[in-house]
Amino acid sequence: MIATKAYAAYQADQPLRPFEFNRREVGPHDVHLEIRYCGVCHSDLHRARGEWDGTHFPLVPGHEIVGTVKSVGPAVTKFKPGNLAAIGVIVDSCRSCPSCRQHQENYCDEGPTGTYNVMARDGSGYTRGGYSSQIVTDERFVYHISSRLDQSAVAPLLCAGITTYSPLKYAGVGKDTRVGVAGLGGLGHMGVKFAAAFGAEVTLISHTPSKETDGKRLGAHHFLLSSDQAQMKKHNGQFDVILNCISAQHDYKKYLDLLGVNGKMLVVGLPPEFPVLDPFALIKNRRSIIGSMIGGTEETQEMLDFCAEKNIVSDVEMIPIQKIDKAYDRMVKGDVRYRFVIDMASL
Amino acid sequence: MIATKAYAAYQADQPLRPFEFNRREVGPHDVHLEIRYCGVCHSDLHRARGEWDGTHFPLVPGHEIVGTVKSVGPAVTKFKPGNLAAIGVIVDSCRSCPSCRQHQENYCDEGPTGTYNVMARDGSGYTRGGYSSQIVTDERFVYHISSRLDQSAVAPLLCAGITTYSPLKYAGVGKDTRVGVAGLGGLGHMGVKFAAAFGAEVTLISHTPSKETDGKRLGAHHFLLSSDQAQMKKHNGQFDVILNCISAQHDYKKYLDLLGVNGKMLVVGLPPEFPVLDPFALIKNRRSIIGSMIGGTEETQEMLDFCAEKNIVSDVEMIPIQKIDKAYDRMVKGDVRYRFVIDMASL
Repeated sequence: MIATKAYAAYQADQPLRPFEFNRREVGPHDVHLEIRYCGVCHSDLHRARGEWDGTHFPLVPGHEIVGTVKSVGPAVTKFKPGNLAAIGVIVDSCRSCPSCRQHQENYCDEGPTGTYNVMARDGSGYTRGGYSSQIVTDERFVYHISSRLDQSAVAPLLCAGITTYSPLKYAGVGKDTRVGVAGLGGLGHMGVKFAAAFGAEVTLISHTPSKETDGKRLGAHHFLLSSDQAQMKKHNGQFDVILNCISAQHDYKKYLDLLGVNGKMLVVGLPPEFPVLDPFALIKNRRSIIGSMIGGTEETQEMLDFCAEKNIVSDVEMIPIQKIDKAYDRMVKGDVRYRFVIDMASL
Repeated sequence: MIATKAYAAYQADQPLRPFEFNRREVGPHDVHLEIRYCGVCHSDLHRARGEWDGTHFPLVPGHEIVGTVKSVGPAVTKFKPGNLAAIGVIVDSCRSCPSCRQHQENYCDEGPTGTYNVMARDGSGYTRGGYSSQIVTDERFVYHISSRLDQSAVAPLLCAGITTYSPLKYAGVGKDTRVGVAGLGGLGHMGVKFAAAFGAEVTLISHTPSKETDGKRLGAHHFLLSSDQAQMKKHNGQFDVILNCISAQHDYKKYLDLLGVNGKMLVVGLPPEFPVLDPFALIKNRRSIIGSMIGGTEETQEMLDFCAEKNIVSDVEMIPIQKIDKAYDRMVKGDVRYRFVIDMASL
């Protein structure tokens, strides 16, 4: 067994504290990674603070993991010690259903095994994430990353990156597609970067006027202030795709109205209260609402290769792990541009 | 001007009564139709009884119109006197926007001109529908129908037919697509017929056990009782497409859960209260919700030709126009299998 240091939530109402546990021995298909950076996703906070049901304490969050390969099992073909590598939101799946056979493990019939807080498929215990010194994962769920990119800023690509890349590809976003990105946070800022990199005409839609400058720096061509009803009305029917990254309570109609004929609203933001859907806003212009959940292993590698080619990374703020609760507090206030990343050397 | 007899709603809380008015003279591109049958759509009731805002009284409802061409304007090329012909939900549109240029006038940028209760594009007054002896319409919005079909049973194809045909085509329903049709009324019964005619594996989903027999007679291969939670759970993820024809208040999640990877819920039913949408049910399996509103002129003619080829008509119950209010009362109770059609000879 591999002794591992970590930070864990012991209870929903307490700050995270140091925790030690053992990772499994390196199996034939396993990659053993020494973790250097781990991004901080809003779901980490929801889980650690018990805002979603079913957290198994002590919880080690973290699913935006970047590190260096320490060792590999004898059957591993894609990695060798010393390689840079990354692990994302999924560490296992059934591998035999139609989705898994197409490397869309995120839509596995049995449900994919999340990187933390999910019972391992062999029943050996709940998975533990990247707020830790090391991790052992089947090579199918480990990715190559380019040494040309800033490794700390690569970490959020593993969740925020693929979560926005995948639906934009699914919706066929390309040259001159009129894309609106609603909500500029961890997801939204990657959505702007990807949509712009795909050649789309990108508009950042936000209720915060001060985000205009940042939006344009990230690649948006236009800014639309969602609290300005006259401006919103003027853009009625003017978009082909809206990437909805809003995690606060909101009315879908406001954004659906922006879509032209056959327009698509891609939902990746998950508000705590369920939005109301006006079907009249949906049947007009034959609009669609499409949900999307992270991405499969093949597409995740494709996204990372695309980022290496286009020099795309996340905008990050580094923190030592001791500051994780302060970081959570700031995330609740939206006070991060745009992703915290833990420097695991601090552990 | 052409003197026209009709039945009209004079006030929301009064039964429809006889009404007389003038149709416009036959213009160069116009077809003058003597109306023989007019289907009774649920929207007629919503409008006549003031359940939707903005009814202009006196209102002559009716947009499922079948008749015989009496005369045509000098520039008309598609019709001549004596032809059987039909008119549906739309009688005009801007004709120059991208949708109109593709004969998808239902998604006209300026909004199509409805067959009743909509200001005519020349500002001459509100349009008046098919509960009348005759109608004058530009030939672009008039359709050929086959003499091989029962004309009275053709009438509902102009709204209930095209409203279900169009989204099933848009979603690519074909051989072996696993289609669930939710709600067996005017729309649903046409949805079952079309999905079966396209070669799909069709399941009728209803909370009324007694509809199983009818569903299978109409072409459904299976029946799923939506009030049976165990059965619903068993079918989790088992459908490619759900045609949602439910016009009563309901929870979208219940039907979204039935969809497999990339599954599509087609929304054509319009509940009075807006449904709540659980985004977790949407992101799982990358599900879509797609709205659809009637169809364009080209697709409407295609649908009518398809019906002639496959011998598809609506299941109807004939009424004299004097019974229209009784018919509305029965529609509210769901007591019609599946569409009332007014025999205009009774006028």
